[in-house]
Amino acid sequence: MTDILKGLKLVEISAFIAAPLAGLSLAQMGAEVIRIDQRGGGPDAARWPLSPEGESLYWQGLNKAKRSVQLDLRHEDGQRTARALVQDAGMLVTNRPDTGWLDYDRLREHRPDLIMLAIRGTHDGRGAIDYTIQARTGLPFLTGRARADAPVNQMLPAWDAVCGLLAASGLLAAERRRRETGMGGLIELSLEDCALWMLGNLGMLAEAELGPARQPTGNDVFGAFGSDFATRDGRRVMVAALSNRQWHALTEATGTTDAMDHLARAFDVDLTTDAGRWTAREPIKLRLAQWFSARDHASVAATLTRHRVLWGPYQTITELVRDDPTCSEANPLFARVAQPGAGAYLTPGIPLDFGTPRSPASRQAHPQGADTDDVLSRLRPLFAQS
Amino acid sequence: MTDILKGLKLVEISAFIAAPLAGLSLAQMGAEVIRIDQRGGGPDAARWPLSPEGESLYWQGLNKAKRSVQLDLRHEDGQRTARALVQDAGMLVTNRPDTGWLDYDRLREHRPDLIMLAIRGTHDGRGAIDYTIQARTGLPFLTGRARADAPVNQMLPAWDAVCGLLAASGLLAAERRRRETGMGGLIELSLEDCALWMLGNLGMLAEAELGPARQPTGNDVFGAFGSDFATRDGRRVMVAALSNRQWHALTEATGTTDAMDHLARAFDVDLTTDAGRWTAREPIKLRLAQWFSARDHASVAATLTRHRVLWGPYQTITELVRDDPTCSEANPLFARVAQPGAGAYLTPGIPLDFGTPRSPASRQAHPQGADTDDVLSRLRPLFAQS
Repeated sequence: MTDILKGLKLVEISAFIAAPLAGLSLAQMGAEVIRIDQRGGGPDAARWPLSPEGESLYWQGLNKAKRSVQLDLRHEDGQRTARALVQDAGMLVTNRPDTGWLDYDRLREHRPDLIMLAIRGTHDGRGAIDYTIQARTGLPFLTGRARADAPVNQMLPAWDAVCGLLAASGLLAAERRRRETGMGGLIELSLEDCALWMLGNLGMLAEAELGPARQPTGNDVFGAFGSDFATRDGRRVMVAALSNRQWHALTEATGTTDAMDHLARAFDVDLTTDAGRWTAREPIKLRLAQWFSARDHASVAATLTRHRVLWGPYQTITELVRDDPTCSEANPLFARVAQPGAGAYLTPGIPLDFGTPRSPASRQAHPQGADTDDVLSRLRPLFAQS
Repeated sequence: MTDILKGLKLVEISAFIAAPLAGLSLAQMGAEVIRIDQRGGGPDAARWPLSPEGESLYWQGLNKAKRSVQLDLRHEDGQRTARALVQDAGMLVTNRPDTGWLDYDRLREHRPDLIMLAIRGTHDGRGAIDYTIQARTGLPFLTGRARADAPVNQMLPAWDAVCGLLAASGLLAAERRRRETGMGGLIELSLEDCALWMLGNLGMLAEAELGPARQPTGNDVFGAFGSDFATRDGRRVMVAALSNRQWHALTEATGTTDAMDHLARAFDVDLTTDAGRWTAREPIKLRLAQWFSARDHASVAATLTRHRVLWGPYQTITELVRDDPTCSEANPLFARVAQPGAGAYLTPGIPLDFGTPRSPASRQAHPQGADTDDVLSRLRPLFAQS
């Protein structure tokens, strides 16, 4: 049972992805996480996708392993109870406006060592969500066959994911400091800053500042060898080589080792380097495409796997869930769990494998609001009166 | 100074994105992180993008705030020294094959409470990188104007980011347990599992299993209102409304409140719900497009901002770095830092704001290998001989 974080308590007053993901990460590692929502459901209570019965699969996915409490946060009674729960737990993550009843200074009056992590859209108070930040980052002009008049958004709310996971680390780091010094604190984190940080970490901000602007490269892996190919039967695969070992595996699997030597001479490039493979990517792709287009997917898959080439099949999500063994109970990440109002479906635990089985509780979403009475009945009288 | 993690020590034997990002997150919060590479540089030592002088901006971006040590890991001497550094630190993150000299059981011989986090491609030993996993997730068939014969990869290696950040939380969680129980442990984490976990968290696996398959929706936000619009002068903006407050802000800003009432009646939908706005998104977009296409970007920006509409401008990375105040030293995330062999450029600290200025050291990349002598000279004799 993954109870690594046994004894850690966190209250989440949250909605959507980032803040709930922070709580989810800690809850699936064994922390006691109480999510508080407005009575009747917060703004993401019915967020799509829905189960055939109309339950939010999105809400369930992001709130596994947590207790769910609903209070009337629009009135003083509910706010006072929420504050008491926060003070009892000593740790809060929120993406609500942290003013008024949720102001840090007010919360810490009864809990001076409170750790509070507040997620905002931007560092300077502008509103923002993942999709509006995506537009700003420039990535939609580098994606697929984007044109200047038709930028392409990525489907995955990746900035929400980065923000929520960084928040989880921030909470654990702050709790470590509290154990050492007794000090809590307010931690502020902006979604937009998370995006800028990652662009900086990947060298993309410096590249834009110092160098020639990067051009869109379709599905090619920038600065190395990676591309997608069609097989004879109309499937597609993604293939990559980021090292000489991987490159040799690819040319051996496809019987193109000699051909690549000739290409290197024809184009005067060194194909033992990333830079050379990147420079000569168009002729390389033309040559490899001959091999892929002459074979069916099954044969391509078997040969690439046998040679330990880095590759993956393109498939739809439906195909992933229906046909791919990695997305099934054959992978210990998953169990089929009956979720409220949705029946049983494949549900992941935390990907971190601490060497013990993931606990059933870590995959279970509770019905929205179901823990309200139980959690309030356990609230310590000291805090209930504050 | 952000030294929240003061006293935490970590060795990283790593390359590329995920493992280095785990170390970066902890290093920028004040942990002492030593990255060990092969003498002469690891496989990502020259990874693109490069500075005009030829230094890897990618390597620098992912290895700020760390000490950089190079050893000859192909020979026993170097391996022994690396092992001693790991045993001294008591904590390791790696994405190298963790067999032979880097086997967990061998490493913990001299350090029984060692925490080791090993990042793999997949849970069952297949090779994989972000790009090959992307293909498998199904997202490239839902991105932009993807067709069945032309899937669209996302530019951001988002699965690497999720994996690296989850690894950081896993290390902190394991260290918390070690403080409580004295126990270390091997933690295994697969990049592919991280992707499957996030798809599950967003409800997308359950949707594919239970419901009708999701169709591509271009730049629209699934299940709510969000879309991109062209302005009269040929710019584009992303606009969204995930709540009634945001929806009212949008219709008031664009003077379409009455028009939307009529649309609701014409199409018999309830535009006070996400579901209604999603169902009627095409007529809504047609009506809003009239407003956007009749105005220049500057006027659109001013009006949307005044009404607190959720929106963002599409811009290139070059425009982001050159023109956007949020990506400048006006944002405390950033400072302009002289980096080795690249001159000064805008460099982010950790987005987590603990209320104290980010330290200059947290933004500084060291020259590759520059800390080798110093780090080895401080290695405790006990470990140096092991």
